[in-house]
Amino acid sequence: MKTYLDCIPCFFQQALQTTRMVTSDERKARKVLDEVGAMIKGFSLDSPPPENGRLMYKKIAEITGNPDPFKEIKRKYTDAALKLYPFLKQIVVQSEDKLFAAIKLAIAGNVIDFGAKSSLMKSPGEFDLEKEAKEAVKKNFVLLDYENFKESLLASSEILYIGDNAGETVFDRVLIEELGRPVIYVVRGKPIINDATYEDAIEADIHRVARILSSGVDAPGTILARCSDEFRKEYDSAQLVISKGQGNYETLSAEERPIFYLLKVKCPVIAQEMGVEVGGMVLKQAKWD
Amino acid sequence: MKTYLDCIPCFFQQALQTTRMVTSDERKARKVLDEVGAMIKGFSLDSPPPENGRLMYKKIAEITGNPDPFKEIKRKYTDAALKLYPFLKQIVVQSEDKLFAAIKLAIAGNVIDFGAKSSLMKSPGEFDLEKEAKEAVKKNFVLLDYENFKESLLASSEILYIGDNAGETVFDRVLIEELGRPVIYVVRGKPIINDATYEDAIEADIHRVARILSSGVDAPGTILARCSDEFRKEYDSAQLVISKGQGNYETLSAEERPIFYLLKVKCPVIAQEMGVEVGGMVLKQAKWD
Repeated sequence: MKTYLDCIPCFFQQALQTTRMVTSDERKARKVLDEVGAMIKGFSLDSPPPENGRLMYKKIAEITGNPDPFKEIKRKYTDAALKLYPFLKQIVVQSEDKLFAAIKLAIAGNVIDFGAKSSLMKSPGEFDLEKEAKEAVKKNFVLLDYENFKESLLASSEILYIGDNAGETVFDRVLIEELGRPVIYVVRGKPIINDATYEDAIEADIHRVARILSSGVDAPGTILARCSDEFRKEYDSAQLVISKGQGNYETLSAEERPIFYLLKVKCPVIAQEMGVEVGGMVLKQAKWD
Repeated sequence: MKTYLDCIPCFFQQALQTTRMVTSDERKARKVLDEVGAMIKGFSLDSPPPENGRLMYKKIAEITGNPDPFKEIKRKYTDAALKLYPFLKQIVVQSEDKLFAAIKLAIAGNVIDFGAKSSLMKSPGEFDLEKEAKEAVKKNFVLLDYENFKESLLASSEILYIGDNAGETVFDRVLIEELGRPVIYVVRGKPIINDATYEDAIEADIHRVARILSSGVDAPGTILARCSDEFRKEYDSAQLVISKGQGNYETLSAEERPIFYLLKVKCPVIAQEMGVEVGGMVLKQAKWD
């Protein structure tokens, strides 16, 4: 998916929010906005947003001197989600269709996203995970390819599960436990926004239910050209890929392979791209032969 | 009031929206964002947002070749408000406190603002003026200096009323008709966003109830240093100033004179500055001896 011009005001919002998380020095924040402003000319609209976001977050790290501004936030939401884990399991156990309930919960966890935000000037959002989980279970999907998903799942001996945010990882674990197949869980290669890295996945106990693999990427998405050979090998031979969240969708939406995108629609650009409303839950399959 | 860093993402949003109103050529929109990006470094945070906005809108006009992108929009909302005029008058007539009702309606009209917007990617907003008017009448103020306003009004032989947006002008007319004093109605010197100019005020029949005066300013606010001598003379000797909307507040908030700011709070920056919530109705007096 390409970068829309509409992504650009949002980049500035993210830049400001991220900088303020690591410093109260407004001069640094000013410098970040000045520098990001000067970078706009160099952004390629043919690239997906995470490719341009990658450049921007590098610049922020350079100016603030902090390569992992969301470290505390990531731990906080992983801890909160771990506390919620028994509750999530209980929801699944009590559901008639356990797999379907687990998918909904995995999407509920996708709310923990500090990249896609639309309200200005709010301090970093407080996500109410329990409320989100309860609502997701009752809610209908805006796009749903569940029958095909089940079919693909049955036909696959192993699943490549590309994770998104820290904390969401725990919700992913609940789904992984319902897949009934060996899973490779993919994390980012370096800290980027609040996306899950190897360390974050370990904290969420993902290693108990899956093999954790880094994509090698330092962007908030899966930019295939930047992925490690090890990841590419797994990806190219995967029978079924689960792609979580907007950033992975943005970078993998043009792929014609057995991919299912699981996400909560959090921004108007993705909503327009998918032809749905902001806030919707999506389980959508890629086109492939 | 100074420009907050939070204004900068909003500037980009406004730039994109404005450009798309006059052209479907996304290359032009791209050029606008590139150029505005490069301008950020030159923005003064010590200036109020309309001073920086002025520079940005000049750049947009230069790139698109259109100095008045909101011309149609302004006419549309003036026409819609004129149709609503009898209904507004009816509300006032049926109210126990007619002045208070007219103030609320004048603030309801302040919703017609194409500068302050917070949702990305929406096509230019459709404002439901009738709904806004009905809601305003029932709603309470978040800041209200009504007793002092009435006192100042009684003590003044003439009022300087600084207007804001086209269409809102008609709502202002309803208030002017309840003030019971001669009024000078101030408009912008040149088209800027959807702010009312002399022509727009005439279309709203303001000349039937007030003397229309241009501030001489080409910014979405009343930047005193850029105002005409004629305006400054009236302003400096005014016994009572009514300042409508955010842009006028942003440029006049530091003034220690008998000014009453009437506005609907439309953005988080103004909300923070005033210590209230977005959406609130404000009738606030300046500090003066």
